Amino acid sequence: MKKTLTLGLLALSSASFAQQKTLIGFTPASSAKQLETEKTFDAGLSPQRIGETIKALSAFPHNIGSPGSKAVADKILAMYKSYGLDAHIETYTVLYPTPKTRVLELTAPTTYTAILKEQAVPEDATSGQPNQLPTYNAWSADGDVSGPLVFVNYGLPDDYIKLAAMGIDVKGKIVIAKYGRSWRGIKPKVAYEHGAIGCIIYSDPADDGYSAGDVYPKGAYKNEFGVQRGSVMDMVIYPGDPLTPGVGATKDAKRLDRKDATTILKIPVLPISYHDAQPLLAALDGPVAPGGWAGSLPITYHIGGGKAVVHLKMEFNWDMVPAYDVIAKIKGSTYPDEWVMRGNHHDAWVNGANDPISGQAAMIEETKALGDLLKTGWKPKRSIIYCSWDGEEPGLLGSTEYAEAHDKELQQKTVVYINSDSNGRGFLGAGGSQALESFIDEITNGITDPQTKVSVFDRKKAMELVNAKSTGDKKEILERKGEKLEALGSGSDFSSFLQHLGIPTLDFGFGGEDGGGEYHSIYDSFDDYKRFKDPDFAYGVALAQTAGHSVLRMADAEVLPFDFRSLQATIAKYATELTKLADDTREATKIDNQLIKANDYTLAADPTRLYKAPVAKDTVPPIDFKPLTGALDSLKKSADKLATYWSAATLKDGDHDKLNKLLYQAEQQLLAAEGLPRRGWYRHTIYAPGFYTGYGVKTIPGIREAIEQRNWDEVKQQIVVVAGRINALAGYLAMGAK
Amino acid sequence: MKKTLTLGLLALSSASFAQQKTLIGFTPASSAKQLETEKTFDAGLSPQRIGETIKALSAFPHNIGSPGSKAVADKILAMYKSYGLDAHIETYTVLYPTPKTRVLELTAPTTYTAILKEQAVPEDATSGQPNQLPTYNAWSADGDVSGPLVFVNYGLPDDYIKLAAMGIDVKGKIVIAKYGRSWRGIKPKVAYEHGAIGCIIYSDPADDGYSAGDVYPKGAYKNEFGVQRGSVMDMVIYPGDPLTPGVGATKDAKRLDRKDATTILKIPVLPISYHDAQPLLAALDGPVAPGGWAGSLPITYHIGGGKAVVHLKMEFNWDMVPAYDVIAKIKGSTYPDEWVMRGNHHDAWVNGANDPISGQAAMIEETKALGDLLKTGWKPKRSIIYCSWDGEEPGLLGSTEYAEAHDKELQQKTVVYINSDSNGRGFLGAGGSQALESFIDEITNGITDPQTKVSVFDRKKAMELVNAKSTGDKKEILERKGEKLEALGSGSDFSSFLQHLGIPTLDFGFGGEDGGGEYHSIYDSFDDYKRFKDPDFAYGVALAQTAGHSVLRMADAEVLPFDFRSLQATIAKYATELTKLADDTREATKIDNQLIKANDYTLAADPTRLYKAPVAKDTVPPIDFKPLTGALDSLKKSADKLATYWSAATLKDGDHDKLNKLLYQAEQQLLAAEGLPRRGWYRHTIYAPGFYTGYGVKTIPGIREAIEQRNWDEVKQQIVVVAGRINALAGYLAMGAK
Repeated sequence: MKKTLTLGLLALSSASFAQQKTLIGFTPASSAKQLETEKTFDAGLSPQRIGETIKALSAFPHNIGSPGSKAVADKILAMYKSYGLDAHIETYTVLYPTPKTRVLELTAPTTYTAILKEQAVPEDATSGQPNQLPTYNAWSADGDVSGPLVFVNYGLPDDYIKLAAMGIDVKGKIVIAKYGRSWRGIKPKVAYEHGAIGCIIYSDPADDGYSAGDVYPKGAYKNEFGVQRGSVMDMVIYPGDPLTPGVGATKDAKRLDRKDATTILKIPVLPISYHDAQPLLAALDGPVAPGGWAGSLPITYHIGGGKAVVHLKMEFNWDMVPAYDVIAKIKGSTYPDEWVMRGNHHDAWVNGANDPISGQAAMIEETKALGDLLKTGWKPKRSIIYCSWDGEEPGLLGSTEYAEAHDKELQQKTVVYINSDSNGRGFLGAGGSQALESFIDEITNGITDPQTKVSVFDRKKAMELVNAKSTGDKKEILERKGEKLEALGSGSDFSSFLQHLGIPTLDFGFGGEDGGGEYHSIYDSFDDYKRFKDPDFAYGVALAQTAGHSVLRMADAEVLPFDFRSLQATIAKYATELTKLADDTREATKIDNQLIKANDYTLAADPTRLYKAPVAKDTVPPIDFKPLTGALDSLKKSADKLATYWSAATLKDGDHDKLNKLLYQAEQQLLAAEGLPRRGWYRHTIYAPGFYTGYGVKTIPGIREAIEQRNWDEVKQQIVVVAGRINALAGYLAMGAK
Repeated sequence: MKKTLTLGLLALSSASFAQQKTLIGFTPASSAKQLETEKTFDAGLSPQRIGETIKALSAFPHNIGSPGSKAVADKILAMYKSYGLDAHIETYTVLYPTPKTRVLELTAPTTYTAILKEQAVPEDATSGQPNQLPTYNAWSADGDVSGPLVFVNYGLPDDYIKLAAMGIDVKGKIVIAKYGRSWRGIKPKVAYEHGAIGCIIYSDPADDGYSAGDVYPKGAYKNEFGVQRGSVMDMVIYPGDPLTPGVGATKDAKRLDRKDATTILKIPVLPISYHDAQPLLAALDGPVAPGGWAGSLPITYHIGGGKAVVHLKMEFNWDMVPAYDVIAKIKGSTYPDEWVMRGNHHDAWVNGANDPISGQAAMIEETKALGDLLKTGWKPKRSIIYCSWDGEEPGLLGSTEYAEAHDKELQQKTVVYINSDSNGRGFLGAGGSQALESFIDEITNGITDPQTKVSVFDRKKAMELVNAKSTGDKKEILERKGEKLEALGSGSDFSSFLQHLGIPTLDFGFGGEDGGGEYHSIYDSFDDYKRFKDPDFAYGVALAQTAGHSVLRMADAEVLPFDFRSLQATIAKYATELTKLADDTREATKIDNQLIKANDYTLAADPTRLYKAPVAKDTVPPIDFKPLTGALDSLKKSADKLATYWSAATLKDGDHDKLNKLLYQAEQQLLAAEGLPRRGWYRHTIYAPGFYTGYGVKTIPGIREAIEQRNWDEVKQQIVVVAGRINALAGYLAMGAK
């Protein structure tokens, strides 16, 4: 039997989405039905209930391993069940350090003992609760060190180049770095690479304190006692339990010895407040910090000439703790073995009203509305799985162990993984697999911004236009056909799905009008959230709609809405960037070596100060990018052909199923079996967290980081690897167009 | 009689200047002799004596109108005379305000009375002297005003655009602006244009205080009590005595009534320290200051919502005071009516060891060395005139009145005016008429940097290369043939010579390794200078050499070393910038109006805050730059022909004299008789201080500012004016090539 499907696959978005339109992947008839379903779904969402859920789930501290964590997981389980979902808790057993001893003292030339304690404030009901985790960085090494203090700005590789030029090294010393400009874990890692024996990270008021805005509780910004907790695990090697890389941390899993776990830091690390940082920084002698390094403490920032000495002692309880992943399922009626997955973590550093409960509450609200839909008799074609992850904060523990434990099945069955995390007032942030750009364009044109009543797509585009730096950038945005999806780095639970398993991924969150300094502190509370983040929980509803519509459409589409032309165009853009990066590096090296040879650096330096001129760098060889561009040409042909073929073709029912499977498994072709150099866990050849940026993405990381690290042999080798994967995808998609 | 001159006119600089080379404008024989003369000159320069002069002339406060001013002028006169120069004091009578009453109080919501007083420090011998001028801004209006305080960032036009977007105006209010980003006088002028009734200017520690470096007396930077005095005269209309625009302020000159003087401010203005600013800023309510506005005081910067009220009372003594210009002459042996002029002011806000005595002392040292040369029997071909100007600080009073009084004679006779001012350790800054670029290239290749022992040219180029922002910029500098002369705006005594009279001008000064916060404060002292500016006075010698060699070569050249090909290339570059500016403005307007029409600004704004979207701007019409580019083509032809003709030609002696006069008077062709729109005193069509930047230059100001102010009719009209002047110069130079 044959039937003709007039699919909306090619109906790439127009600026305004009209309800009468045929949805991508649907027929005109199924489109109408789908929109009706979504309308019912929307009617089931309640901002009040989202607020209540946030309050309930942030009522006490609930970090992984704490009694609160189990209590929150049980609450969530009960809610899922009460809405009619088939829910259970899946438990993994993971390593998790909590502090036993924390000492930071200035011992010379004056003395100061850091208080290392955030202060409760009467305006914040939960700020004085017991059982709060002390301020610390998880995965710091145990250690008891004393040494001269050195201020290293943000503690990034470029900062050490500047220090070296000033004749300052950090070998055997303790560094103090500002929070910001990179993921925090990069700072102690780079400090260790340069020989430091300890690392202090503090929030400077210029970035995260009184210079940013009124401080808590008067305003939302960090007061002098606030401290940003957080993981410093070297998760750019692999995330998840350090003892079980690549496998699920089940009770009986084979585990590494802790000393062999490469993602645990080698030196003690401690985050502090600016109240504690000021006496330390004020005690520094040596050169004045270079331009741009000073923050806004009322002192002159010095680098440190040896006079200021600090003592840092850190001891941890290295416990094995349970990670409670709450998994809730709605079985698909037609394709039960095709899974639409949706996740958000539930663990927090302390109360976590914003991070992660704001996203968690919106997600739970989606299941309430889906439960209401189920009661009307609606059933999704595909299975829908909601996941409330534990242990995200210390290193994506719950989601990673789940993904590793179920890797094969997830690669077989998962159509898409849709993630969220903190959420607040403002503009939609959307990232993920660019084959879904047309789909997301359609989704975001159909969600109304609660404040302005235009679509969240239009509001975001307006913001991008107004903030664009040049007329050229504005024109580019105006000419853009639809929504762009940001490439994903890391920092939330999507990493395993996308970068380890090659599963199509989306990540959503609203924000930009919810600034503050509560992140990972005791002040990330319901009281703070209600005042400064999303006072009427309207953006909780907007997130539930954005993610919920995505879930519903992916679950019910006749043909899954992947369009690989967008992905090809995006990868081609990255490839152009790489060619330019190599050419620019070659030219810059040539010119810079000319300057070095002419002694220009020394001549330009102040002769009254210690200065070490840079040494000449190796010449950048010619690099042949043709394998890459050739592969992209092939991918373009396949993607074009596939799009045309499937939108025009007359399909048999059986083909239909085959096509969908082909579409959602396509991205796995981009995985390199051997993974990225020196970090084989990361297998996606297009996206990874940067080795020296952390959360920040590096696109086509194998080639890009090889260029950045001047490893020319590896550049050539990685061009072959990446081109191979793109060719594989091209060949794979070509099968679908036959 | 005929003689053949093999002149160095075309010997445009190579990177390294070798002594055997023929100097530009000299014959091989006269080159050798000239270099010998310069060697003798150099031997006559003593760093110790420069230090002694600085100490002597900064030993007490000596602002214009004070007893110290007369004492310093007399000392300088005596020195000139003792070195064998024919010197006298030329006195003008000028208006000069000093404060009678200064009151600044916060009156609500709390109270604070500003102390308005810098503190003497034991490390600085002169900091506690009597007769220091109080901290104030000259040419503030008398006034007694009270009103709500508004923080306006740097107080520039763009800041008011941001304020308007936030729904905040300054009508009837008192503004507080940070020093920096523009000449100070722009801030109260723009505040007044927006309806403010008073203006406070303070030094934020982020720009000029502890964040920049250790504060005085521990380090060189501004301590909490330091205040930058300074003129706020609207000198972009005209500099000099406000009562005698365009004419010398001789005793009997016709004077305006003070109320008709357009360069005196209409509102009271007061500069304060950050010690005094902090309580005022901390009292502000209303919105938090936008990103980038906050300084580094340990407070949250707010804009001001009306709660904080200040009272500002300023009363002045509007005295007529004598300006003592000390003029010293060495008569030329061959061309006594061709004048090489050299100037530096002698008046200071307080002691002024750096500003202006460091430059003054170097200049006086030049006359000492010239005096020594005179004793050997050497005589310059042309007359040399050294000028120590009074009253530069309040508004270039001494030099402007002198230039206006002698305008015709100066235009007839002055070959070049060579200026300096503050001087310190570091890199050569050189600006002026670009027809002298090849000449300055040769000069700066012949002066040795005291610290690195390479030429000051090479050291400066090394610094420019190392600091260049992009590889492209580095390549441009590497490919550059010789020294570039910066276009001159204002801020020192060259203005009248260049911009009013069209006299070829040069301006020199070393710096960049002499940072500090003493500018216009009681801490600009000998003690400060010796510690932080030029400890061994070696850069005093370098300045004396740079300016002295320039004086000597201009005085003795056979053919004056003007090369109009450099000027043409520079103006052509400016013209290209203007075309781009017009095109960019047109495109930006089009795109921006599209955004405004689409309501994007409002959609991008936070709806919980007051926001006023911008209104659409007028479309930029097509602008025909062909008259300008055509004129530049003609100038190129003339300049090329002149260069070729005069370097190859066989000259008669009489031609020689005619040629020189033609060369040094050529730049006057670029003067527009009617001057710039709304500020006719400024007649140079290529250089002027910016109407909204002050000291900062605007090149081809008539056209550029008309584009910036969106006055399209004026753009077209000014293209005709400027093209006319360039054509006039082309025609004029063509006469020289016949």
